[in-house]
Amino acid sequence: MTAAGLPMEVTAEGLPTRVRIHEVGARDGLQNEKTVVPTEIKAEFIHRLADAGLPVVEATSFVHPKWVPQLADAEQLFPLLGDIAPHRLPVLVPNERGLDRALALGARRIAVFGSATESFAKANLNRTVDEALAMFAPVLARAKDAKVHVRGYLSMCFGDPWEGPVPIAQTVRVCRALLDLGCDELSLGDTIGVATPGHVQHLLAALNEAGVPTSRLGVHFHDTYGQALANTFAALQHGVTTVDASAGGLGGCPYAKSATGNLATEDLVWMLHGLGIETGVDLDRLTATSVWMAEALGRPSPSRTLRALSHKE
Amino acid sequence: MTAAGLPMEVTAEGLPTRVRIHEVGARDGLQNEKTVVPTEIKAEFIHRLADAGLPVVEATSFVHPKWVPQLADAEQLFPLLGDIAPHRLPVLVPNERGLDRALALGARRIAVFGSATESFAKANLNRTVDEALAMFAPVLARAKDAKVHVRGYLSMCFGDPWEGPVPIAQTVRVCRALLDLGCDELSLGDTIGVATPGHVQHLLAALNEAGVPTSRLGVHFHDTYGQALANTFAALQHGVTTVDASAGGLGGCPYAKSATGNLATEDLVWMLHGLGIETGVDLDRLTATSVWMAEALGRPSPSRTLRALSHKE
Repeated sequence: MTAAGLPMEVTAEGLPTRVRIHEVGARDGLQNEKTVVPTEIKAEFIHRLADAGLPVVEATSFVHPKWVPQLADAEQLFPLLGDIAPHRLPVLVPNERGLDRALALGARRIAVFGSATESFAKANLNRTVDEALAMFAPVLARAKDAKVHVRGYLSMCFGDPWEGPVPIAQTVRVCRALLDLGCDELSLGDTIGVATPGHVQHLLAALNEAGVPTSRLGVHFHDTYGQALANTFAALQHGVTTVDASAGGLGGCPYAKSATGNLATEDLVWMLHGLGIETGVDLDRLTATSVWMAEALGRPSPSRTLRALSHKE
Repeated sequence: MTAAGLPMEVTAEGLPTRVRIHEVGARDGLQNEKTVVPTEIKAEFIHRLADAGLPVVEATSFVHPKWVPQLADAEQLFPLLGDIAPHRLPVLVPNERGLDRALALGARRIAVFGSATESFAKANLNRTVDEALAMFAPVLARAKDAKVHVRGYLSMCFGDPWEGPVPIAQTVRVCRALLDLGCDELSLGDTIGVATPGHVQHLLAALNEAGVPTSRLGVHFHDTYGQALANTFAALQHGVTTVDASAGGLGGCPYAKSATGNLATEDLVWMLHGLGIETGVDLDRLTATSVWMAEALGRPSPSRTLRALSHKE
């Protein structure tokens, strides 16, 4: 690596001093890859991500295997991660059956996934928004009883492929409902990547006005239109300290029509470290991990930082 | 295009209401492409960019053809653009010989290019920083006499591949020198794409303290590490209203070691329009132009917005 291998650390005003990256590559990423990755490779991937300093590595999903065949091996995978503290390994849980499976394996952190729009709730869950919330209610009640931490993912917070721009009040309503059901934190998803920084700051302000503290909000941006990092910077300025990202940008082939384009963790870490914000992540180890995973998948990573750093080696 | 085809317009606080995009695809972009593009295609490209509403389209370079063979046809190209107002068509001029050629063709807007670091001045111009400034002095004096508008490009304002992070005071010194020589505006270049938003805001503040008004500053970010749009947002917050970008991200193959990664104009326009900032650019026409140019070059565009929009058609 040359002398230019790291950015100059220059803090912008009013930003948090530390950000917790919620790594979604092993779940949201691999779930959207065409290649089904062997269980042992997944386990090594998660171990390497945890070893690179990522505090939270979403591990898998307990959705019915019929819907997500890429993650059908949750029962085989989770025991292979036994040396990582369970609170670092959230898992996706759609319903009570999924919760049973997760609890049986010792999961201590789960996530449910709702939608801010009716169109996506119908497409993804075959339910209305309110029917989906009703489905989560017993999951959340039982999770609370078991003292399990619950994250609520909310898709389509900014735009929706069928409905277009999503009104801020509509997103706020569903956020409020998820918190009232007992979610400990929310992840605001720009599932199709259309948001811009002003929209992000206005949604966050509207949530604050509705009584939701920023400390309970994470952001989950997609880079479909190249906006993810600008939106993240806008969210940091609002005080957000939890940011979702996917190692190597896993989760959407940049050359395919279906590109979902998760924000690449490497691009995020580059910005955060340049801003003097602590993450605990070792960028070299993270980059090596994503290069290794890209080879296992047989396709190049869309992360720009990853490409720039790995070409220098 | 679906209902999601445009972002919701939500203005962030304190941003300019209008931004002038300085389009560099036909010069900075094509100069760095391996393919030498026929003169007629270049002329059509520039016409289409101007017709798409880009107010300024950098047209070509009067550097010696030996150094930039891709732009050796400046004398043939410029007359083909006669129906576009010359003040919309800046050209690059390295020295008095280049100025003679540009003036003979009726150019009314030129750009010189300096370096904030000694290493790059040596590599690019085979001169020290101060020797390069001395070379520009008579060019600027004569341009002023001819009432020609002069932009000063400054490379390596943030980081340098040999020297690493560039001290802010060093960049400020060379900016000041270029303005004192008579430059009407400066373009602050992050040539290797390592800058992060705090660094951008601190450099702009330091320039203001040194007596340089923001109105004379443009920014020129590269997306090598994915930071270009976040840095642009930070610059807008500081009041910058001139932003350089390259149609389709031309100017660095994303798959090659030499990737320079100009910020794609489409990604920039998506953000600006989402922020409710006027640009005068018709995104559909711009996208169609970049798709056409990518076909002429025989390679896909690295612009994410371009890919997202063109896949929907």
